[in-house]
Amino acid sequence: MTRATTPARPPGRPRSGVNAIVFAATLKTVHELGYARATVDRIAAGAGIAKTTIYRRWPTKGALIVDCLLDAFGPLPPESTGRAEIMASAIRWIAAKIGEPGVGDAFAGVFSDAVSDPALREVLATRLQDPYRLALQDALGEPENRILLFIDTIVGTLLHRMGMTGEPMVDDDVDALTEMLLSYFADGTGSR
Amino acid sequence: MTRATTPARPPGRPRSGVNAIVFAATLKTVHELGYARATVDRIAAGAGIAKTTIYRRWPTKGALIVDCLLDAFGPLPPESTGRAEIMASAIRWIAAKIGEPGVGDAFAGVFSDAVSDPALREVLATRLQDPYRLALQDALGEPENRILLFIDTIVGTLLHRMGMTGEPMVDDDVDALTEMLLSYFADGTGSR
Repeated sequence: MTRATTPARPPGRPRSGVNAIVFAATLKTVHELGYARATVDRIAAGAGIAKTTIYRRWPTKGALIVDCLLDAFGPLPPESTGRAEIMASAIRWIAAKIGEPGVGDAFAGVFSDAVSDPALREVLATRLQDPYRLALQDALGEPENRILLFIDTIVGTLLHRMGMTGEPMVDDDVDALTEMLLSYFADGTGSR
Repeated sequence: MTRATTPARPPGRPRSGVNAIVFAATLKTVHELGYARATVDRIAAGAGIAKTTIYRRWPTKGALIVDCLLDAFGPLPPESTGRAEIMASAIRWIAAKIGEPGVGDAFAGVFSDAVSDPALREVLATRLQDPYRLALQDALGEPENRILLFIDTIVGTLLHRMGMTGEPMVDDDVDALTEMLLSYFADGTGSR
């Protein structure tokens, strides 16, 4: 009975029911109150779980948000054939995830906190960004600095649009962003 | 004597000494404590000015941060000749400003708050973004949607890098971002 009430999870990511309940409450609270007002207290209340249980798993709000985002994103979409298709599907996938309720807010909020919090930056870079960075370096055969610019451009542009309009980027603009990135990265590093 | 102790201001932007003192204290407090912990109370204490004086001029922290950013950015750099030069100088100018102490932190913080604050988004879009958007539309002869994507890409990418590394983007990556944007926007809309 308990399992039937937990939210649907991405395939292949088994975890305990507590995590699923806490992550759902985190996104809901951030979506409703905004990142700054979504305190661990309020998330715990929303989840119906003791605050101490949350702090035992995630020592800080930043650590909770990063794990929640990692869960929301899940693995990269199945690999496509060809550089252009791999890049285009990664961009569409990130745009769709950032458009899910609470995800864009949580992402923008944790980045803003990270500007002045070195420990949080370390968690963001190693836990959240590195797995995707390494997968993209491997799939595209590009060096780290080019993939970091690729990720900065996609995620940064999408989050800036969300901060300015409160809405995810519309498909026409995601297509334009894709065209811009593809034409820059299409040739690979061989040409530079 | 008082004027000699106020910070240097960009040329052509006269204002009262109080604004100059409050803006300097705002950037310093945000730089030292981070956006979230830089409350109006702490900014007032840093400026040595009564909190009521600040609230009389800026009803919210968001309004203060937007005016502080507007002051830090000042007018667009003097117009260059040719589309590529106008775009390249705008990108370098934004990158340099975002790298100034406190400016990147304040910018990232106010965007994050804006995701869940419609009134703040309105202030950001109309007071901060619109003057630059209109100047760029005019200088480049591009429609609004293309200039908005141009601004999202520059500012978003630079702020994302700052959130991930805590440092402004290095020149080589600013050059790569410039190359990417120039090759996409070089032809103008006539070709699409």
